[in-house]
Amino acid sequence: MGTPAGKAFDVGLLVAILLSVTCVLLESVPAINAEYGLPLRIAEWCFTVIFTIEYVLRLWTVAHARSYAFSFLGIVDLLAILPTYLSAFFSGPQSLAVVRGIRLLRVFRVFKLVRFVREGSQLANALYASRRKIAVFVAGVVCIAVLFGTVMYLIEDDEAGFTSIPTSIYWAIVTMTTVGYGDVAPSTTLGRLVSGILMILGYSMIVVPTGIVSAEMARADITAKRGRVCGSCGATGHAEDAMYCRVCGDKL
Amino acid sequence: MGTPAGKAFDVGLLVAILLSVTCVLLESVPAINAEYGLPLRIAEWCFTVIFTIEYVLRLWTVAHARSYAFSFLGIVDLLAILPTYLSAFFSGPQSLAVVRGIRLLRVFRVFKLVRFVREGSQLANALYASRRKIAVFVAGVVCIAVLFGTVMYLIEDDEAGFTSIPTSIYWAIVTMTTVGYGDVAPSTTLGRLVSGILMILGYSMIVVPTGIVSAEMARADITAKRGRVCGSCGATGHAEDAMYCRVCGDKL
Amino acid sequence: MGTPAGKAFDVGLLVAILLSVTCVLLESVPAINAEYGLPLRIAEWCFTVIFTIEYVLRLWTVAHARSYAFSFLGIVDLLAILPTYLSAFFSGPQSLAVVRGIRLLRVFRVFKLVRFVREGSQLANALYASRRKIAVFVAGVVCIAVLFGTVMYLIEDDEAGFTSIPTSIYWAIVTMTTVGYGDVAPSTTLGRLVSGILMILGYSMIVVPTGIVSAEMARADITAKRGRVCGSCGATGHAEDAMYCRVCGDKL
Amino acid sequence: MGTPAGKAFDVGLLVAILLSVTCVLLESVPAINAEYGLPLRIAEWCFTVIFTIEYVLRLWTVAHARSYAFSFLGIVDLLAILPTYLSAFFSGPQSLAVVRGIRLLRVFRVFKLVRFVREGSQLANALYASRRKIAVFVAGVVCIAVLFGTVMYLIEDDEAGFTSIPTSIYWAIVTMTTVGYGDVAPSTTLGRLVSGILMILGYSMIVVPTGIVSAEMARADITAKRGRVCGSCGATGHAEDAMYCRVCGDKL
Repeated sequence: MGTPAGKAFDVGLLVAILLSVTCVLLESVPAINAEYGLPLRIAEWCFTVIFTIEYVLRLWTVAHARSYAFSFLGIVDLLAILPTYLSAFFSGPQSLAVVRGIRLLRVFRVFKLVRFVREGSQLANALYASRRKIAVFVAGVVCIAVLFGTVMYLIEDDEAGFTSIPTSIYWAIVTMTTVGYGDVAPSTTLGRLVSGILMILGYSMIVVPTGIVSAEMARADITAKRGRVCGSCGATGHAEDAMYCRVCGDKL
Repeated sequence: MGTPAGKAFDVGLLVAILLSVTCVLLESVPAINAEYGLPLRIAEWCFTVIFTIEYVLRLWTVAHARSYAFSFLGIVDLLAILPTYLSAFFSGPQSLAVVRGIRLLRVFRVFKLVRFVREGSQLANALYASRRKIAVFVAGVVCIAVLFGTVMYLIEDDEAGFTSIPTSIYWAIVTMTTVGYGDVAPSTTLGRLVSGILMILGYSMIVVPTGIVSAEMARADITAKRGRVCGSCGATGHAEDAMYCRVCGDKL
Repeated sequence: MGTPAGKAFDVGLLVAILLSVTCVLLESVPAINAEYGLPLRIAEWCFTVIFTIEYVLRLWTVAHARSYAFSFLGIVDLLAILPTYLSAFFSGPQSLAVVRGIRLLRVFRVFKLVRFVREGSQLANALYASRRKIAVFVAGVVCIAVLFGTVMYLIEDDEAGFTSIPTSIYWAIVTMTTVGYGDVAPSTTLGRLVSGILMILGYSMIVVPTGIVSAEMARADITAKRGRVCGSCGATGHAEDAMYCRVCGDKL
Repeated sequence: MGTPAGKAFDVGLLVAILLSVTCVLLESVPAINAEYGLPLRIAEWCFTVIFTIEYVLRLWTVAHARSYAFSFLGIVDLLAILPTYLSAFFSGPQSLAVVRGIRLLRVFRVFKLVRFVREGSQLANALYASRRKIAVFVAGVVCIAVLFGTVMYLIEDDEAGFTSIPTSIYWAIVTMTTVGYGDVAPSTTLGRLVSGILMILGYSMIVVPTGIVSAEMARADITAKRGRVCGSCGATGHAEDAMYCRVCGDKL
């Protein structure tokens, strides 16, 4: 799609996605919906028609229509048009809540933007390669939150907001991630001491994912350097443009 | 401007900028404006005269007056003196709001400080080189905020503050960036669970821009190392002071 | 435990741990405990029996039962089953608070998950190697909090929440770690200025642990590279697969 | 001070510093001061006597008593004992506020802990070498806070807490550093949009100091590698144990 026509199509699609999501957002504001309800609904149908044409064209033009239809982008393209058609069927007054939920699914059109992202593959690889470590890190955060939440549930009163362990765990996550709403906050001296420890822990722990990704990137670097192996002696670590093994001198 | 006179001029200008911005800030405090209104206004005119003389002198002394006038620093220098002169024209009582807005433009004098910054070029290059990735990261943050905001708008009640999707997106940004005002906060169990996921996501995601800049800096390093190419065999990776190609032995 | 039976055992144990901790959490919610109290208590005894069987089996099968019993995992496995048995003894109405505390100890079953973590050894090594620096960093954070807390106790009134130095230190930790509950917040101009300095300090200081771990990882790298020393001339810095000293040419 | 006696002295001093600071903190809690006022005051005089003996001993034993007395640690040691003696002079009821201020100076005894820190020199060097960049970063944060504070002062009402530009700048710093107290928070749609931009900016900007320190550490590495220069041809980049210039072959 490097042609001028392809670029114009891309820009037009980008604008249509952003505008259609904006419409969904504006529709949810009571004051705006009351005044501009009709033009928003008309715009909605226009965007749905545009995305339907786009979906049909893609199905038509791609080499393997089936594999496109079941790919991530294919399902996203389908989900972008389905909610509007579905909401037309549920028109009775009793199904307002259902329609409202279905209509909000249109927000998932933002996933259509994934098509425009071609950057960040090196970072994505580093993230993918360290997915198990990230899972361990997240599990660690949750475990610490469970422990501190239980301890705070024992220490603090119900009046400070620590009414159950799940609520205390919510407080522990709010504190560890340094979000700090303040809707649940410690009121006793012991509770504040424990909170302080949790805060400094959470503040310092941010270094762990940074270290994970840095280490993974350095490892990727080393792996790249070690990529070429000598067929004679198995030595690694040759420069990219080396022609002879640096240990046994055989041709690579 | 390495001469003693030039240095004295620089220091004087720096002090004048900081003092004049401080005056604008103090003028906005009702109590201070009521008591010291007149001296602040006199100081204001003094600074304006100083900056006007500076602007005229620069126009006079630079080699290309035109290119200076339309450069970033030239426009900043002009904007630093215009508001005071403009506010003298709008003296009628009906234009108070306009005058107030114009007078606050004087705060943009802080941009005059850019002249003194000569540090950080390597970091600026790394940031500039990774501008597209940073844009993708910010777009990603906004998309996640849109998705979580919509989900929370469905889950939470109006009473907790989730009155519309834009408000919910504002909450999602406040939560993801770990700011956490607490003016809008989840009250239901499901809402708190979703919030917890968003918090841990936002807490861990900070690693992404760090990774981007680190990767860019490492790449800049590698590019610098690979800069010299052998004319005979196309090999790269020569040291900066190498005189012969390390693969074919020809002179570089 | 690479056999299919071992894997099934691992998965079953993982599920049992997660379910049993979830039960403890749910039991603390008043509404859920009132309605599902009996099934939760039955599930509790089932999990305790399962973990008891697991503990006895491990004692039986490991080579050194004694060293297992006193290892970290052995103690955790014991602590996972003790609270339920203990709570059966204290059945009088006067010991409710004690029983409640003992029963909550069951949350420490999350430590049984440590058995499943085999990732992150490189990062763990970097963290362990830099433990003294991390201690200095945490001590530095606490010292800055003590100083700023005392200063703010002098500046701010009791009404803003700064009722004693310990409370002010709690505020300083909340602020430095960028948690920011807002339950204690400065109200005077001078207090807000000092707060601003503390915030920017805390915001910038996060770079210190990142720097510590990065430096430690780089050092580990250098140590690995320097590991092999020439026996003839003492030269270091040989590649991992080098066979001859790069300075004197003797065999390594 | 590597002798057992020296180590015992060090440990004793460390304990005395921590205990004496704890006493100052506890004295500020009204309930504790009312009940344990006398023992705290006695302990206070004991610690002052201990620190006085330590100060006199150091003056006596160090080689250059004068240079110690005016060094950082010497002044800290003096400041650790002065407040108690000074507060004995101001005993009239009219000087309570002065005495209170002077007595709180004892908290600065935490600086005596600097004597025990021998770690982190590499990081300290990196921080020192990048002090100008860090100053530019902090100045940048303040400038952005001034600009966003002024804009929010124009957009938001007094009722939301934006009563003057200094208050708005305080809000901007609270938001940028992701502290987020919530005592001042935007209430209008436009204000929330601008806040969202500031939040994402502050969230992403944390990468800048990380990048500065990483770059400085990498540079320190390169400088170390380039340290040896060939006397014949001026080439750099020799390995630490190289004996001949790698460009011209002359002995280093």
